[in-house]
Amino acid sequence: MNYSGLFTDFYELTMMQGYMLQKTNEQVVFDMFFRKQPFTGGYSIFTGLDDILTILQNIHFSDADLDYLRTFNVFKEEFLKYLKNFRFTGSVYAMDEGSVIFPNEPILRVHSTLMEAQLIESLILNTINFQTLIATKAARVSYAAEGGTVLEFGLRRAQGFDGAISASRAAYIGGATATSNTLAGKIYNIPVKGSMAHSWIMAFDSELEAFRKFTELYPDSSILLIDTYNTLGSGIDNAIIVGLEQKKKGKSISVRLDSGDFFYLSREIRKRLDNEGLNDAKIVVSNDLDEGIIHQLLTDGACIDTWGVGTNLVTGGSDSSFGGVYKLAAKKINNKFVPTIKVSNNAVKTTNPGIKQVYRFYNNDGSAAADLIALEEENLPSGRPYTFYHPMYFHNKFTLNKYSKVKPMLSLKMEKGKKINKNNPIPELQKKVISNLKCFDTSYKRIINPHIYKVSLSEKLKSLKASLLDEYK
Amino acid sequence: MNYSGLFTDFYELTMMQGYMLQKTNEQVVFDMFFRKQPFTGGYSIFTGLDDILTILQNIHFSDADLDYLRTFNVFKEEFLKYLKNFRFTGSVYAMDEGSVIFPNEPILRVHSTLMEAQLIESLILNTINFQTLIATKAARVSYAAEGGTVLEFGLRRAQGFDGAISASRAAYIGGATATSNTLAGKIYNIPVKGSMAHSWIMAFDSELEAFRKFTELYPDSSILLIDTYNTLGSGIDNAIIVGLEQKKKGKSISVRLDSGDFFYLSREIRKRLDNEGLNDAKIVVSNDLDEGIIHQLLTDGACIDTWGVGTNLVTGGSDSSFGGVYKLAAKKINNKFVPTIKVSNNAVKTTNPGIKQVYRFYNNDGSAAADLIALEEENLPSGRPYTFYHPMYFHNKFTLNKYSKVKPMLSLKMEKGKKINKNNPIPELQKKVISNLKCFDTSYKRIINPHIYKVSLSEKLKSLKASLLDEYK
Repeated sequence: MNYSGLFTDFYELTMMQGYMLQKTNEQVVFDMFFRKQPFTGGYSIFTGLDDILTILQNIHFSDADLDYLRTFNVFKEEFLKYLKNFRFTGSVYAMDEGSVIFPNEPILRVHSTLMEAQLIESLILNTINFQTLIATKAARVSYAAEGGTVLEFGLRRAQGFDGAISASRAAYIGGATATSNTLAGKIYNIPVKGSMAHSWIMAFDSELEAFRKFTELYPDSSILLIDTYNTLGSGIDNAIIVGLEQKKKGKSISVRLDSGDFFYLSREIRKRLDNEGLNDAKIVVSNDLDEGIIHQLLTDGACIDTWGVGTNLVTGGSDSSFGGVYKLAAKKINNKFVPTIKVSNNAVKTTNPGIKQVYRFYNNDGSAAADLIALEEENLPSGRPYTFYHPMYFHNKFTLNKYSKVKPMLSLKMEKGKKINKNNPIPELQKKVISNLKCFDTSYKRIINPHIYKVSLSEKLKSLKASLLDEYK
Repeated sequence: MNYSGLFTDFYELTMMQGYMLQKTNEQVVFDMFFRKQPFTGGYSIFTGLDDILTILQNIHFSDADLDYLRTFNVFKEEFLKYLKNFRFTGSVYAMDEGSVIFPNEPILRVHSTLMEAQLIESLILNTINFQTLIATKAARVSYAAEGGTVLEFGLRRAQGFDGAISASRAAYIGGATATSNTLAGKIYNIPVKGSMAHSWIMAFDSELEAFRKFTELYPDSSILLIDTYNTLGSGIDNAIIVGLEQKKKGKSISVRLDSGDFFYLSREIRKRLDNEGLNDAKIVVSNDLDEGIIHQLLTDGACIDTWGVGTNLVTGGSDSSFGGVYKLAAKKINNKFVPTIKVSNNAVKTTNPGIKQVYRFYNNDGSAAADLIALEEENLPSGRPYTFYHPMYFHNKFTLNKYSKVKPMLSLKMEKGKKINKNNPIPELQKKVISNLKCFDTSYKRIINPHIYKVSLSEKLKSLKASLLDEYK
């Protein structure tokens, strides 16, 4: 992991120096939130928190970093001295890693000096945006696979070294069963899986020999790639020969397809395997898959157990970024926090002012009903009815009378620069995601055209926003 | 940079052990090539070579790496001992970094033992695929900007740490003028630039004061962000006040727009600035730009000097991966290299066999005419006519009689595990890209629907491919 304070947009450094010299380094609160679900989906999975907290706890400037900054001839020694001693001393409130998140909600809040808050803006966004994008994609792919196994195979198409390592972490948290990336397995203690490449088959005189040699070596993990020469003409026949040999030894095989029409082929292959009594042989497919293709294949009745997903899982495919932003919510003036708002002609881009908490309301059956963004000071008691206001169109509102419980979503994760908790083991995070998603009705999880989960403002927050908008005019 | 040999797909390791135990670790040649231009464009820029050569020269397995592999209970001590002593001892032939590349051409060739060649497959693809994607995007964006300045502002939306660092390198090589990523600037010695954020403006009591304080601090790099409150209602007025003050001191300003319609706003702002005699004030824009938007704005007559491009430049936008692949081209049998072919029902996926060289033919005016893939042993002499065969439809052919020169594109870059040359300074690579692209007619560089540059097979290579295809049937 990188701990250099230079991993920031240059303007953060020039602005920081400006704040120091202008003596306007007050305490502030910044929110991280996003405006639009990726993949035209119904939800996202908040991921990357443990990583960013570790980075924040360790971020600093080396002497070489400072020497580099001197070369710009715009930084004063007073400022460089500040950076030399820099440690992040702020506090971070955030949702739990693995939470199901929605647009406009603060998912993370930074409480610190203005200078500190600016320095870490790009760093926080870089880490959370990417891992949240990938965990969300993984959750969608896993949902489409309807309980089938999802293997993350993206290393060779990932966006650089960390584009692969962080993606393996996030994909596993979001629901992938294992990764092919051996180093990610080591770093994050994620299960690692693999099969064989066409080059293995081609390295032997015959396909049958290649299959036999592989099962001899790896009898407990024999995924035979059957499309090198002719899937239905030779591959499946040779796999069945080896599968029957293995069966006598009490072992089973899997077969993998990397090309062709998976609907047709998987059904033919399933029939062939079952006819030979190889009912426990699994069918694995891979080749530019995504949640849409998987959903279509299963809806049509393809016989596929395991999905190897690469490019689209580790890059997000055509949605290659998560649009998280980081905006000033409050600043301390005369020892009191004053809410701030950023107004835009585009109502969607106008921010919600003040220090905020997000409350998730649950129905009696345990399913999530709606989220309410309120001012932290409101400290909503459970049990009474609440009116939910649309974040932009304040005349749109509804009152929730009946609900079983209310859960505040943001909690203190870092206090004065120190992490509150140890890192979560990655398998625990995956379990949390699965159980968190269970609380949402399938209509929100639909792959195409999902129902929109409601995120509203409390009466007090709505009134504050309205009054600041009036003031602004 | 990562030098752990574990940064590989797990199946490469299981296959390697298989080759060792089967004693099938012959000398092989693998080609890296790609099948389709990204961004529906006409060309790509080969990037990432210096990085991958550095990694190959240093790749190894630590004791902790080996301990981790032991936990799988599938690797024998004999194999782990091999890995303990592992160093890449092969040779690499490649095009020069910054070359203009086309589908089906080998852009890099690995000559090594089969085990070594397999280990580094994912590593090579990860590095080259991503940097080539981004340099190509940068070249397209720079071309669309028609000589305007392109600033890479992507850190916060990049795919993780290295998704930002490598992207800054590749974007600069492809044509960006500077990056906002301070650490990338330090690591790669790339120019770093920045302006100010909305939060700077909001930290002061007035927009005018915010502008004044900034120009006092940074008189030589004052890019004033004018859209925080009201671009034409206050932002430009305040910028003009400060611009005139700076003019008296012999300094100039720039203004930046981060929202609104850039065609309309830039023309209004240009008029206002010119009317006040601030003709040297530059107009900078940023907000989800890409080459298509830039091209449209300039074609329409927008008055924009500088383009801050973030998300789309560092992730590729909707094309988030470059599809480079790595395929066996030849293997040594009885001390002689024998060409191999991978046949697919899909003709596009059938590989070109043998150890190959790429020749670029130039017209008399110095422009590139066409590329010819030939067998390395052919060693094509210049001066005689050559027949160019379509890589799949062999009846499609043409003969090139007149050309000014022929350039072999692949050369030895790493010999027996040692880099031949020192790393190129990044600014030199950018210059090479610019001069390489100058040799291509604008029809190939068109942003939308470009002309397709011809890549063909030599007569000998065509005959070899045809005979192997016949043999296969």
